[in-house]
Amino acid sequence: MARPPDARDTVRVDSAVEEVAAFNAAFYAAFEARDLDAMSSVWEHSDRSTVTHPGWPTLRGWARVLGSWEAIFSGTPYIQFVLTDEHVHVVGDVAWITVDENILQATDGGGADTEELSGSSVAALNVFTREGGSWCMVAHHGSPVSIAEPG
Amino acid sequence: MARPPDARDTVRVDSAVEEVAAFNAAFYAAFEARDLDAMSSVWEHSDRSTVTHPGWPTLRGWARVLGSWEAIFSGTPYIQFVLTDEHVHVVGDVAWITVDENILQATDGGGADTEELSGSSVAALNVFTREGGSWCMVAHHGSPVSIAEPG
Repeated sequence: MARPPDARDTVRVDSAVEEVAAFNAAFYAAFEARDLDAMSSVWEHSDRSTVTHPGWPTLRGWARVLGSWEAIFSGTPYIQFVLTDEHVHVVGDVAWITVDENILQATDGGGADTEELSGSSVAALNVFTREGGSWCMVAHHGSPVSIAEPG
Repeated sequence: MARPPDARDTVRVDSAVEEVAAFNAAFYAAFEARDLDAMSSVWEHSDRSTVTHPGWPTLRGWARVLGSWEAIFSGTPYIQFVLTDEHVHVVGDVAWITVDENILQATDGGGADTEELSGSSVAALNVFTREGGSWCMVAHHGSPVSIAEPG
């Protein structure tokens, strides 16, 4: 923008960035805790809510989004995120975050004693909207990082 | 929102949705044409521009975004998109689109006569911002669809 922001703009924008960053942290905390209520409270419950888990097709609408979290939580005995390169952008009542998820997780191997720990990298793009003064997640897109950037 | 939109709101919002949809179509047309100038004109050229190609880490900043398109265009003799389930959402000066990319492409097999045609499915989340009345893409995230939704 050509117009330099005044002090009030700066404070307002920084505050929104911090709010969204906190909200994003709440999303990953709910994911690590595999807490369906906490995850539900992060999300907008609407037809436009979408989630794309690594390798999955995009699921549209809150019912399918919720169902996917139920399936993932029940199949994930343990998951831990180390988030790097988080970038928060806010324009009006929409925010989007790109963040690299460095994941350590246990997955059910099919039997009671066959849990395996594995590491993976996921590139994430999260979209949030603000209504009535509070933010909620409206899209989460995580994709598997399998190749390095070509030189 | 509790307040029902009046006629002016409806016309304005629908117009924005159509504008963004047209812009999204221009993005895929540039991709199919492997036209770097056309692709460049679709994008915001800024530090917050990001692209996540299927399997790649997220690349941040216009220089790296542009470099990725150069690499992909030079390594892709032919690519065709059939887009399905496109959903456009506009809130203020931000828009996001989820769309399923059904792709037919030829890839260099390493030699002059070794092009191979292959099909793939990519889940995409595209983010646009509007400044000075015109839209531009600020994030493209495409991820490989390798598994069906668990039942």
